[in-house]
Amino acid sequence: MLSFNRDDADYVAELSEFVAVPSVSRDASPQTMLAAANWLAAQLEFAGGRVEPTAGHPVVRGEWLGASGAPTVLVYGHYDVQPTGDLAEWLTPPFELTVEDDVMRGRGATDDKGPIYVVLKTAQAFCAQEGGLPLNVKFLFEGEEEIGSPHLRGYVTEHAAELAADLVISADGAMWRPTEPSVSLASKGLVSLDVIVTGASTDLHSGRYGGTVANPLHVLAEILASLHTPDGAVAVDGFYAGIPPLSEQRRGEIADIPFSAASFLAGLGLSQGHGEPGYSTLERLWERPTLDVNGISGGGKYTVIPHRAVGHVSCRLVLGQDPDAVLKAVTAHVLARPASGLLVTVRPDEARVPAYTIPASHPAVRAAVAALEAVYPGQEVLLACVPGTLPATELFETELGVKTLFFSFSTADEKLHAPNEFMRLRRLREGMRAWEHLWRLLTDPAR
Amino acid sequence: MLSFNRDDADYVAELSEFVAVPSVSRDASPQTMLAAANWLAAQLEFAGGRVEPTAGHPVVRGEWLGASGAPTVLVYGHYDVQPTGDLAEWLTPPFELTVEDDVMRGRGATDDKGPIYVVLKTAQAFCAQEGGLPLNVKFLFEGEEEIGSPHLRGYVTEHAAELAADLVISADGAMWRPTEPSVSLASKGLVSLDVIVTGASTDLHSGRYGGTVANPLHVLAEILASLHTPDGAVAVDGFYAGIPPLSEQRRGEIADIPFSAASFLAGLGLSQGHGEPGYSTLERLWERPTLDVNGISGGGKYTVIPHRAVGHVSCRLVLGQDPDAVLKAVTAHVLARPASGLLVTVRPDEARVPAYTIPASHPAVRAAVAALEAVYPGQEVLLACVPGTLPATELFETELGVKTLFFSFSTADEKLHAPNEFMRLRRLREGMRAWEHLWRLLTDPAR
Repeated sequence: MLSFNRDDADYVAELSEFVAVPSVSRDASPQTMLAAANWLAAQLEFAGGRVEPTAGHPVVRGEWLGASGAPTVLVYGHYDVQPTGDLAEWLTPPFELTVEDDVMRGRGATDDKGPIYVVLKTAQAFCAQEGGLPLNVKFLFEGEEEIGSPHLRGYVTEHAAELAADLVISADGAMWRPTEPSVSLASKGLVSLDVIVTGASTDLHSGRYGGTVANPLHVLAEILASLHTPDGAVAVDGFYAGIPPLSEQRRGEIADIPFSAASFLAGLGLSQGHGEPGYSTLERLWERPTLDVNGISGGGKYTVIPHRAVGHVSCRLVLGQDPDAVLKAVTAHVLARPASGLLVTVRPDEARVPAYTIPASHPAVRAAVAALEAVYPGQEVLLACVPGTLPATELFETELGVKTLFFSFSTADEKLHAPNEFMRLRRLREGMRAWEHLWRLLTDPAR
Repeated sequence: MLSFNRDDADYVAELSEFVAVPSVSRDASPQTMLAAANWLAAQLEFAGGRVEPTAGHPVVRGEWLGASGAPTVLVYGHYDVQPTGDLAEWLTPPFELTVEDDVMRGRGATDDKGPIYVVLKTAQAFCAQEGGLPLNVKFLFEGEEEIGSPHLRGYVTEHAAELAADLVISADGAMWRPTEPSVSLASKGLVSLDVIVTGASTDLHSGRYGGTVANPLHVLAEILASLHTPDGAVAVDGFYAGIPPLSEQRRGEIADIPFSAASFLAGLGLSQGHGEPGYSTLERLWERPTLDVNGISGGGKYTVIPHRAVGHVSCRLVLGQDPDAVLKAVTAHVLARPASGLLVTVRPDEARVPAYTIPASHPAVRAAVAALEAVYPGQEVLLACVPGTLPATELFETELGVKTLFFSFSTADEKLHAPNEFMRLRRLREGMRAWEHLWRLLTDPAR
């Protein structure tokens, strides 16, 4: 067994350096993104860590290949983070990692800087205490996950031989909930788009023109409202096409999982759920696709008729849905709505990520369950889903021909993408121990 | 006749000083608002110009009362301006008055700093060239018009005796269009409100929660879309209550006005109008109330379910509508919509301005028409409406018992409230000459 004998404060101080770099892939400068990448590369010194360019933000690479005859795994994660959102809602500055009891708060703390940090420390402990890792490990950390990984495919394709491995292990993809350990078997796909309604050539005084011209915000509201039925299903023709019916067996498995929808909702400050009729909350979350309006912009709190209104829409997809077909269906729906003479356009984002799954019977899943059972003795390890999207998974399957195991020590309730994102402090040590077990188990599955 | 013999460049340079103060009443500092007020007070030196406090931004006062036996008029205007909106859309910096041919561009150039400047120069020319004004003039310039004049009523009530006059002349309230002079006989009322939809206690990751909880943006879009019928009428029960039917005589008068809806729309970059069925474009503009969504905010271009979404709605009212009743009707409509378990609240803004009118037969209207005929020989002076809102008018009628004449040299197409607001340069001289005629005519209506 490795010894993880540094103080928590030491680990936190080091991770703080990483969180302090505001590597918001949507709008940070190339210098800022490079600073985050350089920090990671320095941590990978034992593996020849280095920053490599892509057509977008750079990737960080490294490899330790001294375990002759042992399997090779590719560890994946991302050093970019989401925008902060409204700064006023943060309890502490987003780029200052702040610890209060078991909460380590900061943008990127749990998505995905903390979980990356866990695997780095595990690998460094192996090198320091055992002179090397129990298996061959390649590292690939990207800087564009939060914007849909637009350049990862090109990079992986071009470097497929160098990245070849028996398995990808993703340090991204949170555990389902804090009450027990879980391994995720699936993640949802993603497509997203802007709906843009353009009116007059300039913003108009709502008094001097109101009532005579169509208002882009009215047209946009009508379009966005039409995307769902009143009872919560997606109203887009063809949206659900290709999805196999939910089997009675799967329904039974899900029903057997200890889960209280009421507690789940209460934890969010809600007294009532809402979603596609005919499915339970957990079925909606794991087995059904969704469509959400993520933002609307146009005008402001003054008396104008804005000349332009934009809504951002994203869809989470399940197995069977074709991302291009979904985009096409949503676009057709939007363009068929009444526009009162205004110009309505749809601008899809680059990402077209299908859903992904790894079978429960896969040896890597069995090893992950065993590793978690070792770290959390006496607790059942649940087989769950990641209702979020991990674009890299499908890409690794297509380009490298290998499955991806989700092995993150983030937890889904840790305000990912929202103000006050945090990671549980205890997950650092639990994670290091679990990665140690996982790597040893993968070396010798019989053990 | 007065001589207005300074160069245009001189006038522009002086007005530039006023425009350079970014007196955005919605968010400027008290110091900035005071700087604009002080500039005005200095211009009113001939009338004992001074800044006086209110519970909000200060007012600027002055009076020249040396015309014994002549009538007394109160000149009204406002030194505050609208926010700039998107700076990227401005051709030149908003607070640098920029002249290109007949265009003087800058925030506040035409609403209302330029029109105020015109009356100041007229009064100063009278004092310099004739030793005084032909009638008694009091000045009242406020700093909160663009936020609904929340403190003007209190101030006017408290100073009613000092402000007593035979007539208010408003330097605010644009002429209808640039092709001919016009006098406005009416302005619309205004109420406005925020519709606020509150969901979970924090923004939620759209993957990890999407499909299980109601999205505040979906609920808001449905509410806002429900405010109009598909053909453009306001769908709020009781919204049109109290409005007398449009008489055949008024319809005839409006139909007789040379007006091309197609050109009006083409000037806005639109090929098609949209509004309440059964009314012409000009009838919609002058005689019918409107409801517009002015802005929506919530979320952004990233994959969250925002925990809060806000829509700002304003209504322009016509004679017969009670502002409180309209607010109540809109609120009831909003709160009756399906909310999928989320919290929907309505927060009305302070302003509750009823519509206003002055009869065409009023002596001041006749004097204004004569003054404009003198400045624009051979052109018919149209009797029009201000579809915008001038909250002060109703207030002066109620608190001082006098009518307000609109006498502004702004024009409604000059991008009021929008980026690239401008005033026509020639309107400066035309305006000075017209104010000269108006004041002389009001002294001796028989002349």
